[in-house]
Amino acid sequence: MPHTLPTADQPNWLERYNAALIHTVRVRVPDRPGSLAAVLEAIASARTPLGDIRIVGADSRCKVRDIEVFCVDRDHLARTLDAIGSVDGVLVERTTDEVLEIHRGGTIRTVATVSLDTVMDLRMVYTPGVASVCQAVRENPEAALAYTAKGNKIAIVTNGTAVLGLGDIGALAGLPVMEGKAAILAHYVGVSAEPILIDSSDPAEVIGIVRAIASGYGAVQLEDISAPACFEIESALNEALGVPVFHDDQHGTATVCIAGLINALRLTGREPGDIDALVLGAGAAGLAIARFLVGFGVRDVVVCDSRGALSPARDDLNRWKAEVARLTNRAGVAGPLEEAVRGRNLLVGVSKPNTVTQDMVRSMAPGPIVFALANPVSEISAEDALAAGAAVAVDGRGMNNALAYPGIFRGALDARASDITHEMKLAAARALADAASAGDLLPSMTDKTVHRRVADAVADAWRSRSF
Amino acid sequence: MPHTLPTADQPNWLERYNAALIHTVRVRVPDRPGSLAAVLEAIASARTPLGDIRIVGADSRCKVRDIEVFCVDRDHLARTLDAIGSVDGVLVERTTDEVLEIHRGGTIRTVATVSLDTVMDLRMVYTPGVASVCQAVRENPEAALAYTAKGNKIAIVTNGTAVLGLGDIGALAGLPVMEGKAAILAHYVGVSAEPILIDSSDPAEVIGIVRAIASGYGAVQLEDISAPACFEIESALNEALGVPVFHDDQHGTATVCIAGLINALRLTGREPGDIDALVLGAGAAGLAIARFLVGFGVRDVVVCDSRGALSPARDDLNRWKAEVARLTNRAGVAGPLEEAVRGRNLLVGVSKPNTVTQDMVRSMAPGPIVFALANPVSEISAEDALAAGAAVAVDGRGMNNALAYPGIFRGALDARASDITHEMKLAAARALADAASAGDLLPSMTDKTVHRRVADAVADAWRSRSF
Repeated sequence: MPHTLPTADQPNWLERYNAALIHTVRVRVPDRPGSLAAVLEAIASARTPLGDIRIVGADSRCKVRDIEVFCVDRDHLARTLDAIGSVDGVLVERTTDEVLEIHRGGTIRTVATVSLDTVMDLRMVYTPGVASVCQAVRENPEAALAYTAKGNKIAIVTNGTAVLGLGDIGALAGLPVMEGKAAILAHYVGVSAEPILIDSSDPAEVIGIVRAIASGYGAVQLEDISAPACFEIESALNEALGVPVFHDDQHGTATVCIAGLINALRLTGREPGDIDALVLGAGAAGLAIARFLVGFGVRDVVVCDSRGALSPARDDLNRWKAEVARLTNRAGVAGPLEEAVRGRNLLVGVSKPNTVTQDMVRSMAPGPIVFALANPVSEISAEDALAAGAAVAVDGRGMNNALAYPGIFRGALDARASDITHEMKLAAARALADAASAGDLLPSMTDKTVHRRVADAVADAWRSRSF
Repeated sequence: MPHTLPTADQPNWLERYNAALIHTVRVRVPDRPGSLAAVLEAIASARTPLGDIRIVGADSRCKVRDIEVFCVDRDHLARTLDAIGSVDGVLVERTTDEVLEIHRGGTIRTVATVSLDTVMDLRMVYTPGVASVCQAVRENPEAALAYTAKGNKIAIVTNGTAVLGLGDIGALAGLPVMEGKAAILAHYVGVSAEPILIDSSDPAEVIGIVRAIASGYGAVQLEDISAPACFEIESALNEALGVPVFHDDQHGTATVCIAGLINALRLTGREPGDIDALVLGAGAAGLAIARFLVGFGVRDVVVCDSRGALSPARDDLNRWKAEVARLTNRAGVAGPLEEAVRGRNLLVGVSKPNTVTQDMVRSMAPGPIVFALANPVSEISAEDALAAGAAVAVDGRGMNNALAYPGIFRGALDARASDITHEMKLAAARALADAASAGDLLPSMTDKTVHRRVADAVADAWRSRSF
């Protein structure tokens, strides 16, 4: 039962590794002193962290044990199995992919919330009674929020063009992620979410389809749609639909990033106005973080894409990068990352693995803040950034970008918001920052009260908006 | 708690009425002998059936009681309230629409099927673990049936153009029906179903949208889409998608009708080949029933629309009616219903209220079978048909067209069928017929074993298909 191991109160030792694969290896081991130690020694030689070890069978000469191992990737798993298999007298009987097993049958399901055991139940939930509910909604479409599941349900829309670090793998292959998001929403904030897989990379088609099917949902979460299509899709849907449209890869990530920044500023005794930021990466997350930093009141922001600093002087920018270039880079910084990062107080990386060096961190202003968030391997490890002089450093393992969206949707639905405003995202970031334990940048994802605090802050921000 | 009253084992006394509205009336009644009797007398004068009566308050001079009443429509409710209010000293304090209350917040929700309490859980359900599940689906799309909810999930697609007897009320106003269908699927057969509301009456657009979003579902149920668009949509989607597409208004209704016919033939000692059928109504249900009757082996079928019997001789038929006309009406019957129905053994009405007279029943062959299924008021009441000589008669109150679809979808998903064939529908009809108690046409909807029997029969029919 590997998934019962660390509780929310235990240190999250797993995040020290980038272990994405969790396998149970069934081994037949000679029943003599030292043989299990030899197996564990072999596993250690492959640099593979161990989980539970259980006896599942035995005969006169052998014990059969299930040994749980955590691996970074399939190569790592193969090396681990080879190492075990090379121990004298030890036989690997089989391996079970525990992650696949957890996902067997999916991670969400639909249930009835009403009794349906009697004919009377059926007559009220279904025909003939339901006709009067239909009439009520027909007379006043707002009644759907009260008398259907719509008011507590969101669509998680993807076309699978930018799934996690996997890229354009298609909508169906992205479904396990969408279900995971939906399962988190159900578990932590009681929101129903339905993955909507759209087999199209044409933004106009995605927009048309979401518009046509949106009436059943109280909000729309866009997910894992590649840039720049995601900007066009979000912008058009925000205009067309009367319900919140929220691209989590942009705004969820940016909200968590600002929450972490709020606490990093507290820890280092600085104000937003003291901060010159460098955002590395000009995709969905990077551009949203840059806009949020500007709205948060940092002194200046420079965004770098693979060709260097964004500025209005560049003529190779798409519409979305050009807009951000106009809002940022007051000093007209040009050139590649290693030049643009000099003298900055904050580096936020949402780009690719190993793109930031310790020399770059050393070239920043003294005691910089480094958020290196690329997944699964970050731009620079937190350890290396700290060693190069960072006052605060965190990498992808330490900043969970799923912290924001459950509370944001819960709050938006609670307040029946028609939009998710900058103020709502800022309120979410402040609530997350306030919920962290002293000395931490962010609170624990597994603490339900955190999501409730975010939701309340978001709902309040909507209710107190000025028009 | 009106919905706890009749159990599956009790006689379904409610179906004797067409009561679609269930209201609780809170009345303040003078605390003296005979006053409650006077209130009940007044309710009886409005011909309103009574449910529970409970004391909810009292003072020195009055009692406050909640009285449950069953009404056919709002006029009936208004008459009932007027009658109560006219009793001397009695005050109606408020009325509560119990059906609306049952539907408050909707009748379905999404839940997580996995533990999410620990960081370990999150790492397996969501990132980083989920990436390996995505990879598995990417490498083999069939893996989605095992490792996502897809294999147990259907889309209930509607555009709201033909909702119950309400007509074209739009997709959102149809949502309570779709949720009711989904709640029944969840409760009776454990299938997850998502209402997909499409705001379009253009068949080509509906087809395009369903094609684009279908990859997340193991089957598609079309629902409450008007004819003839429903035929075009079903036909195109059946061709385009690799999963079952099932228009319940057609095939669910037809399956239940054939199940009832199987038992009606048993009760009257007849064979399908003895039967000349008349189907009144050439919409979704009527044309599907006519085709099913032909496939079931009745001697002949004549279908009547509002202009009379369908035959190849008519030049005003759409493509779908023309197709059925070619399959039916061997004798070339022409003319209106009252002529076409003469000498027939079976009348199936899926048309409009009060369109069949006792004289028409008398003109049929001796001892005819009459299924008058229009809702909420049928073509002729079962009582009137029996009085006019029908050997077996049932009306909309006695034939629940929701009996078939739960087991059909359960069976199709269990067998991973790519289609729902005639043989599968016939197997469902036979299973339903066999599950009925002796002397009944159909089994109880609330008996879960009935749906399991249908599912097993449907799955077996798919597995034993010949190519």
